Amino acid sequence: MNRKIYSNWEITQINHDKKTIKEDLVASEYPLTIMVNQIEFATIICTPNHLTELVIGFLASEGIILMKEEIKSIDIDKERGFAYVMLHKKLESIHFNHSKRFISSCCGKSRQFYFKSDVRTARTITHGLIITAKQCLRLMDDLHKKSNEFKQTGGVHNAALCTVDSLLQIRTDIGRHNTLDKLNGYIIENKIPIKDKVIVFTGRISSEVLLKISKMRISTLISTSAPTDLALNLANDLKITVVGFTRNRKMNVYTHKETIIE
Amino acid sequence: MNRKIYSNWEITQINHDKKTIKEDLVASEYPLTIMVNQIEFATIICTPNHLTELVIGFLASEGIILMKEEIKSIDIDKERGFAYVMLHKKLESIHFNHSKRFISSCCGKSRQFYFKSDVRTARTITHGLIITAKQCLRLMDDLHKKSNEFKQTGGVHNAALCTVDSLLQIRTDIGRHNTLDKLNGYIIENKIPIKDKVIVFTGRISSEVLLKISKMRISTLISTSAPTDLALNLANDLKITVVGFTRNRKMNVYTHKETIIE
Repeated sequence: MNRKIYSNWEITQINHDKKTIKEDLVASEYPLTIMVNQIEFATIICTPNHLTELVIGFLASEGIILMKEEIKSIDIDKERGFAYVMLHKKLESIHFNHSKRFISSCCGKSRQFYFKSDVRTARTITHGLIITAKQCLRLMDDLHKKSNEFKQTGGVHNAALCTVDSLLQIRTDIGRHNTLDKLNGYIIENKIPIKDKVIVFTGRISSEVLLKISKMRISTLISTSAPTDLALNLANDLKITVVGFTRNRKMNVYTHKETIIE
Repeated sequence: MNRKIYSNWEITQINHDKKTIKEDLVASEYPLTIMVNQIEFATIICTPNHLTELVIGFLASEGIILMKEEIKSIDIDKERGFAYVMLHKKLESIHFNHSKRFISSCCGKSRQFYFKSDVRTARTITHGLIITAKQCLRLMDDLHKKSNEFKQTGGVHNAALCTVDSLLQIRTDIGRHNTLDKLNGYIIENKIPIKDKVIVFTGRISSEVLLKISKMRISTLISTSAPTDLALNLANDLKITVVGFTRNRKMNVYTHKETIIE
C-alpha cells in the first residue's frame, strides 16, 4: 500500500539574482477510481497511501456504509488506480445521484444540507467533550512536530485523531477532505470509540469538512486555518465545537465556546 | 451580483491566557447549482460574487461551450442559489457523465487525462511567452498588495490575469479552482486575447488547476504555492511554464525554464 508519496523533480531555483539547478521533492497526486459492486462510483484525487482506509472512509462519508462488516471485499489495483469494492448488499439507485443537490431544513432555518447523502448521514453530536485551551495548543504543536517529514513539499494537509492529551494517528493528503476520510476509515476498520476524541487539522473549515466531522461523530475540530460562515452555521446546529487560527499561542473559538475551558 | 462575500461572526479569541469576545469576519460559502437547458448539471461551492463569470468559465472548462455566443441566456437566482443557463444547442448526453474517468495517452506516456471533458478540451500551448524573474516577483507583490482587502478572513484564494508588466483583473474565491473559472469567464465574456497573458495565483498547483490553465490557453502560471507531480507532468506535455513558491524574492521554476529569463 505504500506507494511513493513524493516524486523527485529537477527545478531551477531563483534566489534574488542567483540561479541554481537542483533536485526537489514534489507531492504525488494520484487518481483512484472506486468501483462499487462493479459499477463506477467516484474518482478521488489523492496522495497514494492508506488507500483502503481512504475508500472505507469515503464510502462512509457518502452514506454507503456504516460499518466495515457491510464490505465483502476491497481490492486495490495500485498500478492502474482502481479500488474494487464488493458490498454484501445491493447499492440503491439513490447512491448513483449522490451529488444531486437537495435543500432541506430539518430542524432550523440554518441547517441546509445541499447534498442528498448529507441529509441521510449527518447527525447532531450529543456528547459535549470538554478540552482546555492549553490542550488544544499542545495538540497542534504535536501535529506540527510530527508532520515535519511531510512538510518539505509544502503541498499536503494533515489531520490527527487525538484524545485531549495526545495524538493517536496522523493522516496526510494533498486533498484536505481525504485526510479526514483516511482517519474515518481507520476509525471504522479498528472500531475506535470516538466520544473522547478530537480532530486536529491543518486545512480550511468548509461546510464539506464540517459535515465529514459530523459524520465521524467527532465533537471538536481544532484547525490552524479559517472557517466559512456555512460551516459555522452547520457547527452551531450539529453541536460541533470549531476552533480556528490555532497558532502562536492564540486561537479563535467560533462555536460552543463553553466546551473550551480555562 | 455583489452578494456579501463575508459574514460577521462572534468569536472568543484566546491569546495566551487572555480571553476576548469580539466580532470577526468569516468568508461566505455559497452553493450555486447550475441548470443547463433545464437539466441539473453541477453544484459549485463558491464565494458569491462574479457568478455569471463563474458559470461561463465553469461551462468552458467542462467543455460545454467555447464562446459566449453559444449561450442564449444566463439567469441567476441569488436567493436560492441557482443559475439557469440556456444554450442555443442541445446538450449532448456525453456531458451528463462528464466526470467519468477516462485514461488516454494522446501524445506520450505521461499525458493521462482522467476525466473525459479534459480529453476534449485540453490542448498544447503553442505560444511560448517569455517573462523575466523580476517581472514574476513584481506581479506576485502586486497581487498581495491588491488582495489585502480579501486577506482579513484568511480563507480565500486569489488569481490574477496579467500582462508581463501589470495586473489586469483579480478574482477571489474560497475554492481555488473557482478563481480560475471566474477569470476564464471574464476572458470569454470580453473576448480578451490571451497570448500575451500570464496567471498569478495563490493556490496549490494540482492537475485540475493545470488543466484549467491549459484550457484557458495560458502559457505561464506563477504561484506562491507548491505543485504536484501529476500537474508538472501535464505542464511538460502541454508546454505550460510552472513557477512555484514565489515568495521573499525567491521562486522555483519547475517546467520550461527557458521561458523565465534574466
